[in-house]
Order: sequence, then C-alpha cells, then structure tokens
Amino acid sequence: MTPPDPGLLSLNTATTRKQWGLAQAIAGCVRHGIRGIAPWRDQLREMGVQPAVHAIRGHGLSVTGLCRGGMFPAGDAARRKAAIDDNLRAVDEAHALDARCLVLVVGGLPAESKDIAGAREQVRDGIAAILPHARRAGIPLAIEPLHPMYAADRACVNTLGQALDLCDVLDPRGEGGLGVAVDVYHVWWDPQLERQIERAGKARLLAFHICDWLVPTRDMLNDRGMMGDGVIDLPRIRSWIQRAGYAGFHEVEIFSELDWWRRDADEVLATCKDRHQRFC
Amino acid sequence: MTPPDPGLLSLNTATTRKQWGLAQAIAGCVRHGIRGIAPWRDQLREMGVQPAVHAIRGHGLSVTGLCRGGMFPAGDAARRKAAIDDNLRAVDEAHALDARCLVLVVGGLPAESKDIAGAREQVRDGIAAILPHARRAGIPLAIEPLHPMYAADRACVNTLGQALDLCDVLDPRGEGGLGVAVDVYHVWWDPQLERQIERAGKARLLAFHICDWLVPTRDMLNDRGMMGDGVIDLPRIRSWIQRAGYAGFHEVEIFSELDWWRRDADEVLATCKDRHQRFC
Repeated sequence: MTPPDPGLLSLNTATTRKQWGLAQAIAGCVRHGIRGIAPWRDQLREMGVQPAVHAIRGHGLSVTGLCRGGMFPAGDAARRKAAIDDNLRAVDEAHALDARCLVLVVGGLPAESKDIAGAREQVRDGIAAILPHARRAGIPLAIEPLHPMYAADRACVNTLGQALDLCDVLDPRGEGGLGVAVDVYHVWWDPQLERQIERAGKARLLAFHICDWLVPTRDMLNDRGMMGDGVIDLPRIRSWIQRAGYAGFHEVEIFSELDWWRRDADEVLATCKDRHQRFC
Repeated sequence: MTPPDPGLLSLNTATTRKQWGLAQAIAGCVRHGIRGIAPWRDQLREMGVQPAVHAIRGHGLSVTGLCRGGMFPAGDAARRKAAIDDNLRAVDEAHALDARCLVLVVGGLPAESKDIAGAREQVRDGIAAILPHARRAGIPLAIEPLHPMYAADRACVNTLGQALDLCDVLDPRGEGGLGVAVDVYHVWWDPQLERQIERAGKARLLAFHICDWLVPTRDMLNDRGMMGDGVIDLPRIRSWIQRAGYAGFHEVEIFSELDWWRRDADEVLATCKDRHQRFC
C-alpha cells in the first residue's frame, strides 16, 4: 500500500501526557509539522479552554477529537444525572475547540453490579440524553468500542458491531451526529472488523486511532505499542477504513508507562511521524 | 435460580497445578466428592496415561475434557504438520481417558506474522486434518474461543460466534464430533453471548468452564477469580446454557498466581464446592 498522507497524522495528547501538558503538546505538533491534535479534558482544564482554543486556532491545527465523554453507568439516578451533565459540558468544550467529534468511552459496570446488560441500557439512555445537545452544537458523538478486557471497568461497548447497533437504535433514520471511533488497539482482533467498518461507512466513521498491540502485553492499560512494534496489520485496516469512505486523520494514541512515556517527547513525535509513513 | 446440582462440579487440574500433580488431584476430587476432572496433558504425561486411566476409572470419575489440543498456526509446513501430529496423539490420550471432549486452544499468530486472517485459515485446516481421527476415536473436539486479549499469542478464535462459524464450515451437515467449550472467563463480556449459546444448542455445547473476572485484573494470564469474587453473572450464563440443552459438568478452571495457587489445595477444592452452590 502507498504510505499515508503525512498531513493526516494527528497526536492524541495521551501519547505524551507524562512529559507534556496541552500547551507543550500544541507547540510540539507545530514544531514537528503534525496538523491534528486530540486533547484530553483534564489537560484542557489545566491549560484553560480559551487559551487552548486560541493556541490551536492560531496554529491552524485541526482538533480530531476531544477525549472524552461517556462513563454513563452508575448505581443511582443522581450519579447518572451527574454523568450526563458532565457530558453536556464536554460537548460545549468540544464545540469551543471546533472538534471533529467528542469521543465516548461509555463506562463499565457500576460498583457491585454484575449486570452488564443493564449497564449497556444505561449507556444507551445516557447517549440518548446528550445527543440532541450535541446535534445542536454540531459535535458528532463518536462511540469508541473498547477492547473486551475493559468491559467491566471502562466500557461495556466492546465491538464495532455493538457500537453500530447502538447507533442504529439511537439514530434509526441516519440523521447523523452519531458514529464510532475505530481504535485499532481495541478492535484489531475482531473477525467481523472488515464487514463492520464497511457497515459503518463514511457517515459513521468519525475517528481512526492508531498504535500497536505488543506481544507480550505487560500491562492491561498502559502498555500499548508504537506503530510497527506489534502485531496489528495497520495498512490492511487503513485500507478498509479508506474503502468505506473515511478520509480523516490518523490519530496516534499510545498509553505506555514502560516505554514511550519515559522518552523525550520530541523523540516520541518524530517516531510517530516516521512510523506513520513506514507501518501504517 | 436454584443452586446447581453439586454432582455436576468438575475440577480442571489447572486450578491446583502449582500444588498438586494429577495423582494428587484425582485423590483430592475423591476426598471432596467432586465427580468430574479435566486433566492437562503435561500432568498426564508426568503421571503416565495408564496409571491415570486406572486411577480415574477406579474412582468412577468422569473426565470432562482433556486440556488441550490446538496451537495449529505455524510459520512453516513442517511445524504445522508437527502440531497436527501432536493433536492426533492428544485425541488418542483423550480416548484412553474416555474424555467427553478434547479442548482446543487453537493458537495465535505465528512468530513475526501480522496475518490474523491467515492464522484463522490455518486453524480451520488444522481442525479439518484431525477431525476424521477424532470422530473415529469418538472424541468430540471442543473449540474454545479465548478472550480477545489472547488473540495474538494463544488463540485467534475469540468469540463463540466465530467458533460456531468454524463448526459450520467444518461440519456443515451437523454430523457431530465438533463443538465448543464455553468458558465464562473468555466470553462473559460478549453482547451476543446469549444468542450464540442458543445457536450452539445441545449438540455443540461440549463443555462449560467456570471461574470469575476480577476487577482489577492484575495479570493478563494468571489472575482469574474464584466464582463469586468477580463480576460475571454466572447463574445467568448457566441458565442460557441449560436452556440450550446442556446438562453436562461445570468445570472450574482458575489460573491464579497471586491467590489460589498459593493456598492449600484442599482449601481450594472446598471453596470451589461452596462457591459452586452459592454463586453459580
């Protein structure tokens, strides 16, 4: 496959979160000629929304997503309501940033619960509650299916097919404003991946996140690999995404306590650029 | 739900592998009134097949499965052939033990490979190569879908639906001798679980393995929980299995470096019996 357009590379700021705050990540992207950025809300709060908007706009960066909304399930109504209120604020922040989407990590089981079907209903209801506001704000909601190993504690939406079923239920007439974020780390193993990407199509493919799956994986959360260091056939998945009509950014998101978070962040960005060209 | 028939409890000997060899595990089952046992081949080799057959038969235990065949994908033809030969021997051992099935952990990606679709084809071909021998021996092959977190290094069959698709391809007329092992640890998260268990039906449900999913999970391989200590709704899954017609054993399989492998094995067995009644 032809190497990807280098202009499509985006930095999810989780990749450098141990080294850099958001202001530094913005400056880093500018320095390395990376044209997209996806901030996390904690870093956004730290920098302040208006300064972030100013810096990002001033440098002409695209915000390929805001991380993250979601975390809907909770043991009682008050906490479910609080989660929805927080998601509404996340939509507003995404709007201020002119983000391409708000990424939803939907949440896992409430404490003490073993009712995953119930948690999934709470997710459906939570997204339904914020979708009108998101549509008015012009911020598409990107449901990110997370790897099944996070089903209990992070996200009970665990396959692309399941995420798309949810889109069908919440947006039955395809009015838009709702879709999926495809992160290769979470979905690479799925035997239905190709067909579900095709099913999603251009309208519902809102974000594409890249990294790699290391063998062995030494930590369930923070041992993601740099593109090329693992077993994911990235060009193949990119070909499916493109064939489905996705022409957006390729957002690098690497949680790596043992490796990349320990390195000089400029080295990390240079490596992302190089690997994007050689392995994606 | 009514507690399960205590006579359906079986011990997968992985649960006590750090404390006991197979002979001790057999004696332990007898001492605790556990009527089923599922040995691993390394322990079987250590004890010797004939002594194991003699001891198991002498005590009237049922062998609810032999662990394990599989591991088909390999980088070259010679190694694929060696894997098939080893699986044929495993069938013979299962036959000697009068096992209810040979459990197949199908294998992951060959070294240096990123071709998971290719690995899945090798699995299909490997099972096809041993199925005639298994049928002649009267040993059903139980494809065990493993959790997607093991897709790269242990098994590239990762959902029950995928395993049943494989059964449909390899046994299109339902002649039998091929089915699935449902281990709650691997499949509990799957939104399609209920419908795929129903699809499998009595004919293809060959084994049911129980344990629990801990939150947090501290190790990707050896931190399984005792029934009741995690988030899996075991009675619900058992109800689906039973409704589909499965009336076989409930086999406890717990890999637990940090907890159960460090305890007195008699305590482990007593706990299995108690938790089986209270949480399954």
